[in-house]
Amino acid sequence: MASSSVSFIIIIITTVLLPSLSSQLSDLFPSNNPPPFLGKHSHPIKQPNHHQQYHYETRYFSQPLDHFSFLDLPRFRQLYLINTEHWVGPSRSGPIFLYCGNEGDIEWFAVNTGFVWDIAPRFGAMILFPEHRYYGDSMPFGSKEEAYRNATTLSYLTAEQALADFAVLITNLKKNLSAEGCPVVLFGGSYGGMLAAWMRLKYPHIAIGALASSAPILQFEDIVPPETFYNIVSNSFKRESSSCFDTIKNSWNALTSEGQKEDGLKQLSKTFHLCQELTSVQGLSDWLDSAYSYLAMVNYPYPSNFLMPLPGHPIREVCKKIDGSPAGSSILEHIFNGVSVYYNYTGEVDCFQLDDDPHGMDGWNWQACTEMVMPMSSDRNTSMFPAYDWDYSAFREGCQEDFQVTPRPRWITTEFGGHDIEHVLKSFGSNIIFSNGLLDPWSGGSVLKNISETIIALITKEGAHHIDLRASSTEDPDWLVEQRATEIKLIQGWIDNYRKKMKATFEI
Amino acid sequence: MASSSVSFIIIIITTVLLPSLSSQLSDLFPSNNPPPFLGKHSHPIKQPNHHQQYHYETRYFSQPLDHFSFLDLPRFRQLYLINTEHWVGPSRSGPIFLYCGNEGDIEWFAVNTGFVWDIAPRFGAMILFPEHRYYGDSMPFGSKEEAYRNATTLSYLTAEQALADFAVLITNLKKNLSAEGCPVVLFGGSYGGMLAAWMRLKYPHIAIGALASSAPILQFEDIVPPETFYNIVSNSFKRESSSCFDTIKNSWNALTSEGQKEDGLKQLSKTFHLCQELTSVQGLSDWLDSAYSYLAMVNYPYPSNFLMPLPGHPIREVCKKIDGSPAGSSILEHIFNGVSVYYNYTGEVDCFQLDDDPHGMDGWNWQACTEMVMPMSSDRNTSMFPAYDWDYSAFREGCQEDFQVTPRPRWITTEFGGHDIEHVLKSFGSNIIFSNGLLDPWSGGSVLKNISETIIALITKEGAHHIDLRASSTEDPDWLVEQRATEIKLIQGWIDNYRKKMKATFEI
Repeated sequence: MASSSVSFIIIIITTVLLPSLSSQLSDLFPSNNPPPFLGKHSHPIKQPNHHQQYHYETRYFSQPLDHFSFLDLPRFRQLYLINTEHWVGPSRSGPIFLYCGNEGDIEWFAVNTGFVWDIAPRFGAMILFPEHRYYGDSMPFGSKEEAYRNATTLSYLTAEQALADFAVLITNLKKNLSAEGCPVVLFGGSYGGMLAAWMRLKYPHIAIGALASSAPILQFEDIVPPETFYNIVSNSFKRESSSCFDTIKNSWNALTSEGQKEDGLKQLSKTFHLCQELTSVQGLSDWLDSAYSYLAMVNYPYPSNFLMPLPGHPIREVCKKIDGSPAGSSILEHIFNGVSVYYNYTGEVDCFQLDDDPHGMDGWNWQACTEMVMPMSSDRNTSMFPAYDWDYSAFREGCQEDFQVTPRPRWITTEFGGHDIEHVLKSFGSNIIFSNGLLDPWSGGSVLKNISETIIALITKEGAHHIDLRASSTEDPDWLVEQRATEIKLIQGWIDNYRKKMKATFEI
Repeated sequence: MASSSVSFIIIIITTVLLPSLSSQLSDLFPSNNPPPFLGKHSHPIKQPNHHQQYHYETRYFSQPLDHFSFLDLPRFRQLYLINTEHWVGPSRSGPIFLYCGNEGDIEWFAVNTGFVWDIAPRFGAMILFPEHRYYGDSMPFGSKEEAYRNATTLSYLTAEQALADFAVLITNLKKNLSAEGCPVVLFGGSYGGMLAAWMRLKYPHIAIGALASSAPILQFEDIVPPETFYNIVSNSFKRESSSCFDTIKNSWNALTSEGQKEDGLKQLSKTFHLCQELTSVQGLSDWLDSAYSYLAMVNYPYPSNFLMPLPGHPIREVCKKIDGSPAGSSILEHIFNGVSVYYNYTGEVDCFQLDDDPHGMDGWNWQACTEMVMPMSSDRNTSMFPAYDWDYSAFREGCQEDFQVTPRPRWITTEFGGHDIEHVLKSFGSNIIFSNGLLDPWSGGSVLKNISETIIALITKEGAHHIDLRASSTEDPDWLVEQRATEIKLIQGWIDNYRKKMKATFEI
């Protein structure tokens, strides 16, 4: 997993665990950290209004660094994008569509959330994309360097603070625009989807509903089995080709035995066209793990350029390469041909960098080491990854080593719930859509059953990671067109209902 | 208001404002801070299980000081009282009754919340009284002195942190007792009632319902008129006797003109039997204001010893004294005779101390200067208090001067809602009883109308500050007996409903 898309903590844990494992080198392991969401692929868009289809103003809002204490801390500037072009305004109670920014540059999420832009005109809606604190241009203490300096400066990077940022921003904005009567609808994908769902639960007075796409709010503690994620990734390969699944499953042993040979690491580096020679087999193993996991997330039915330039049905293409490698190729050459679809679809890469910045601070890894503790295992039988049992102690030690912080693995469910969610939400929440594609490995940790008449699970068998939030295209399969139509209808229902109640009040 | 029950901030603001007012001394003013709740009357009960009717164990739970950041802060010991004598246990999903500790020693609240003790046996319920952080024996940094040292040490004294304390405590306790399936019902009076209602809204996965007694959750910003509180106090006097109301209303001018005389302060000190000579008229004015406000809160129909030993219908008794003072007495002598009912009902006091510790740090004043900003005015026509318009700037300056902190007057409604509460709660919340006695001056800031079938306003015309939470007695009027019976029925309904759902799940 040591590519540019690798998670920092994983590296650290690697360092922590490897010594004890070195005597039994066949035990490669997948990360005991959840594979990161997609946010780390986000990158600054330098000329926001140039060469792109969406138009917005870039603004800043001054936020308290800590909403929940009264420490005398420096405020920070939160970036937000705003478009009011189609907004019908307060007099017609024009809706406000608020995307809950997640772990990356907000502009990257904005341009990859075409659904919101596509539907805003028909709703006469304002569009808001506030950035998540500690990401992109929304840095406390003036710079990323300062914000990420240590556990003290990072300590305000939490989901609760981010939700409070959204709440304070929208309340202030509505007041300034005399738009207190305008309904707010939340959107979010992945971690942003979790934020959207949680915000609807915690701030029902602020938002009338939430579309939470691919939001694994149940991927905590023992709510779903820890094997879930890797099982879904594995099944996505198996459904394309069982021999492909077998090849990958068998490749880990080949990798370790190759690595044990004299000159093994050198040979492996050559086989995988690495720019630098490997220092451990684990680095290569992580790189492969990462490719498979991301492939499962973006296993879209049409070509996309979300993380990497990829063909449609990319896992199918990877398996074609793995299964169709020339006779006489080694198992590792099969693997290399396969993952090249992910890492080098354009064919422009001469050699691969496993890891750009293994020791760079990464916001999501801080979050995973504090609140967002998502247990992950890899099952000996059903997963194509090396077997691994979730080891919380090792995880905690890694976090202490890396960030000098102790995780609070039970905090998220204490604060937001998660256990027995069907009962809790049935008698309490309303107006949430949990949309999930079953190909998405995160879907296993999300809400997959309708909970009430207004808390709806929209499931697509062929969908992947928040595909519904992407812009509509002529290549959209029918099920995706239908899914979006249902979402639009539900959102329209929330707004109609809200306006009906408002009207009833005025008439009284 | 400079008695032992005075609020510190008020004193400070007095200091800040008086210079500018000294040229027009007729302008006495009531506090521009809300009269404090009752918690400051709480006092440590040294021998908890001695000479009292309620039995409990005293335990401590280690809490993070900041639930919403990951600063490396010292944990603190939260005191809680527990009684499991009547609890039917996890196998019969025995309920857990949790009183949300408010601004004072939890033992004082426990012995003054007889309702919970009275009804626990019939419900087979466990009783829990967790203390609010920064009060009683639940001090961060090891001692009150350290906890109240400055704005930095006090900064974690917020309602959100207190709610998170309750959430973490109960989650942990239930896990340890394998009682995850046991329903939690919240209780609270006054600020504790606000916490109970907010906790039901913010942590519906943790508690199935809340009895929020005398909880002024709407006493923020412009949700209710700022005159509300003093108008209700004034009406409570007027309904007993309009001449009593008039005498009090006219007394302020008498007070100021007396104070302007040579030796006036000396004479006033004598008239009011003060132990120390007055240094300003305002101090005496505050002392009187405080008596009237507290009298309205505890205007119970039977003798009580909640704040002070008092007769039943104490305002009636005060007015009897004011109206019935000997012919030839001055207006201020009338007033003195009246307030002596409050300050000296037992007749044991020789002279009065206006203020025990004017510069002592007080937790509620910190809270009022940070989140709990409750605007208060006194209307020229309808109030019997000196006319005063809420002046936020002066209030803020007082807070800066006193605590070196800037209030966030809009935070509470951003975090918990409040505006348009009927719509918001109707489509979202459930299982909350807002109980209020209309004699209670805090009732005006509470929820006085049914919001839905499960968010119920229970109003009693003759009730005062959370009288329903007090122990039943043979002197209870019928309306109080009925009110409590309704509360019991509603709570039973929540529990039955919960068990029905649990059972349905097991049968599936």
